[in-house]
Amino acid sequence: MLSEKVIREQIHEAVEKVKQVKPMAPSITNTVTINLVANTQLAVGGSAAMVYLPDEGEALAEIAESFYINVGTLLPVYTETLPRTARRLHERKKNWVLDPVAVGLGAMRTELLSMMKPFKPSVIRGNASEVITLAKLWGLVSESSSAGVKGVDSTDAVSDAENAAIELAKYTGGAVAVSGEEDLITDGTNVMYVKGGSHFMEKITGAGCSLGGVIAVYAAVTDPFTAAVTGSIVYDLAGQLAEKKSDGPGSFQVNFLDELYKASAGDLAEYPFSLKN
Amino acid sequence: MLSEKVIREQIHEAVEKVKQVKPMAPSITNTVTINLVANTQLAVGGSAAMVYLPDEGEALAEIAESFYINVGTLLPVYTETLPRTARRLHERKKNWVLDPVAVGLGAMRTELLSMMKPFKPSVIRGNASEVITLAKLWGLVSESSSAGVKGVDSTDAVSDAENAAIELAKYTGGAVAVSGEEDLITDGTNVMYVKGGSHFMEKITGAGCSLGGVIAVYAAVTDPFTAAVTGSIVYDLAGQLAEKKSDGPGSFQVNFLDELYKASAGDLAEYPFSLKN
Amino acid sequence: MLSEKVIREQIHEAVEKVKQVKPMAPSITNTVTINLVANTQLAVGGSAAMVYLPDEGEALAEIAESFYINVGTLLPVYTETLPRTARRLHERKKNWVLDPVAVGLGAMRTELLSMMKPFKPSVIRGNASEVITLAKLWGLVSESSSAGVKGVDSTDAVSDAENAAIELAKYTGGAVAVSGEEDLITDGTNVMYVKGGSHFMEKITGAGCSLGGVIAVYAAVTDPFTAAVTGSIVYDLAGQLAEKKSDGPGSFQVNFLDELYKASAGDLAEYPFSLKN
Repeated sequence: MLSEKVIREQIHEAVEKVKQVKPMAPSITNTVTINLVANTQLAVGGSAAMVYLPDEGEALAEIAESFYINVGTLLPVYTETLPRTARRLHERKKNWVLDPVAVGLGAMRTELLSMMKPFKPSVIRGNASEVITLAKLWGLVSESSSAGVKGVDSTDAVSDAENAAIELAKYTGGAVAVSGEEDLITDGTNVMYVKGGSHFMEKITGAGCSLGGVIAVYAAVTDPFTAAVTGSIVYDLAGQLAEKKSDGPGSFQVNFLDELYKASAGDLAEYPFSLKN
Repeated sequence: MLSEKVIREQIHEAVEKVKQVKPMAPSITNTVTINLVANTQLAVGGSAAMVYLPDEGEALAEIAESFYINVGTLLPVYTETLPRTARRLHERKKNWVLDPVAVGLGAMRTELLSMMKPFKPSVIRGNASEVITLAKLWGLVSESSSAGVKGVDSTDAVSDAENAAIELAKYTGGAVAVSGEEDLITDGTNVMYVKGGSHFMEKITGAGCSLGGVIAVYAAVTDPFTAAVTGSIVYDLAGQLAEKKSDGPGSFQVNFLDELYKASAGDLAEYPFSLKN
Repeated sequence: MLSEKVIREQIHEAVEKVKQVKPMAPSITNTVTINLVANTQLAVGGSAAMVYLPDEGEALAEIAESFYINVGTLLPVYTETLPRTARRLHERKKNWVLDPVAVGLGAMRTELLSMMKPFKPSVIRGNASEVITLAKLWGLVSESSSAGVKGVDSTDAVSDAENAAIELAKYTGGAVAVSGEEDLITDGTNVMYVKGGSHFMEKITGAGCSLGGVIAVYAAVTDPFTAAVTGSIVYDLAGQLAEKKSDGPGSFQVNFLDELYKASAGDLAEYPFSLKN
């Protein structure tokens, strides 16, 4: 069990390190929100690089300290790129974040996400339905254990995904972050809930995807659980502050990027959260 | 013939329904403006999902109430994805919107748009040149009937496309929306002209594409003509309001998303238009 | 040698012509920043069109006056599209801009950029490391001549790339623009340094890519050196002005687009620069 004090120290250190080191967290990610992923990674102090080809995924897996894989918009070449990149990341013991967007939709998506299981992503980030569906797909929870349905939007509450998240984290040895009205982060032992963000986050595309990319940035300089916690907190804080200045989703996205950029290690290390265990 | 009163009631109902139901209108669309398409769909109250693969197009065609297909940036996989998805939409009697971007450019684009003819898109949205060129490609108007030329930007006035638009709508049994300084919407019988928008719409990429995506959102809850009218009106109103607050195309895009979000059913049902017939 | 007076007159003329003619500068470019490339091209007065397929690259190479090729995110179809489009551009004597993003990463990227050599891009735009690495790849400078390393971000200073830039420009007969804290533009004889921009340019993705797209717009109406100079200057000026109004990278990108749009021929023709030779 981690103490609150230790967690807050680790958050502080992760935020500071990213701003000093500017770590590159490459991505294989969807074309809808790829620009926002890169811009949020830059805003918190990291560096971005996006690729599609298998040899480029492998090359970046070698030189980067962490990686982000998001299956939002699959392309034919991904049948080669995703397994080869994930395998290399696993072999090189690099931290990597998996966002199983719309798991359950289409045959190739299901096949690719099944193939990811042995490569144990360090962080899995998704909405409640995606986390539950992935845990079922990997055989970690029983088919009947909850109501997770396939699709892009979640139809389950975050707390409904707690058991699936814990089982996934136990299996990977990493962390799982479930995003929603409140966020759940677990490493299989510690279970944290964080509140914040904004109702506008549902009105812009990519709030979830880009959180995955930002967690990958932090995962370049710290452990998976601290990375997932730090990413979730910077999103909750920046979302709250941005909403106050915004008239709608257009101005919210602009203000959100500004607030991500301005959030200091001190601000983030002091943000409220609750530890369940 | 529809009366003005009936049209205004249908607009009001469509806007309200979208805000209640949050319908998902999936897209196969170009990579240039894919983010704006999703963000405008979310701003008016809908939900977005973008895919490239044939099995995913078919899967979403089954579960969604409407769909958006935009051929802006063709990829090799589209030779499979587009016809299979359009066929499934037609078979399942789902409303779908076709944006024949740059029709006439390149052999594959011409071939794919020719193959779309039997699948009768519920709404065709394009600029005047695209609508004229598509009507010629489908053999609905004579080759000599007007001056439509190929390319990304229109070289014809909206009113020059009126005959082509009417013929396309008669053929599909749906509606056609021609975008320009004024917008024309027709179901083959009723012909409506709407004014508004902003000169900044030509200075941001995707004003037209994203209108197609927004029309698809409304087409999930209403008939093709009402969907095309409602989408055109929300763009004309939001464009006008956004321009007043904007210093250039950057701030215009931000304000435009905010105004799309704020436009109420009452505002839209009262917006001026003229019925020609 | 060009006099300062002549250069300023040419800048003035290029900016005016673009605003009158609205030239289309098509792109084959990466999916991360493709939207910003199009929006910056529109903001300065040009027109945008993006493609992926070989026949569409060739078709646009025929009808456009200039072209932009950026290898940021390679796709499998590019092994056909890039050489066929570049060959056509060279055969038709069209101006075209090459952005050798991340040259040195992956086998296909190296192969494709090697194949570009005989098609002599009119303008090469990159950061210092990319320009040095490309000059080595094309055998124009010795392997030991400098410290250029592969990757997305530059690890070399702009002035370290001066020799490589001059050799590349002598080989192509066009111009080279090296972007960084100060910008270097050369046609192999004239060497210009320009300062400006903003520290926020490193905090948004695509400042470099979109500069390449804007240079391509100017290259549709003027010679490669003037196009590269005009593009660099409008970025330096708009960046400076936008920074003053911005709280972070989100608002910076918005203000930057507004300032690109507002920059007049007079403003740009008077911007300070220094000629080295």
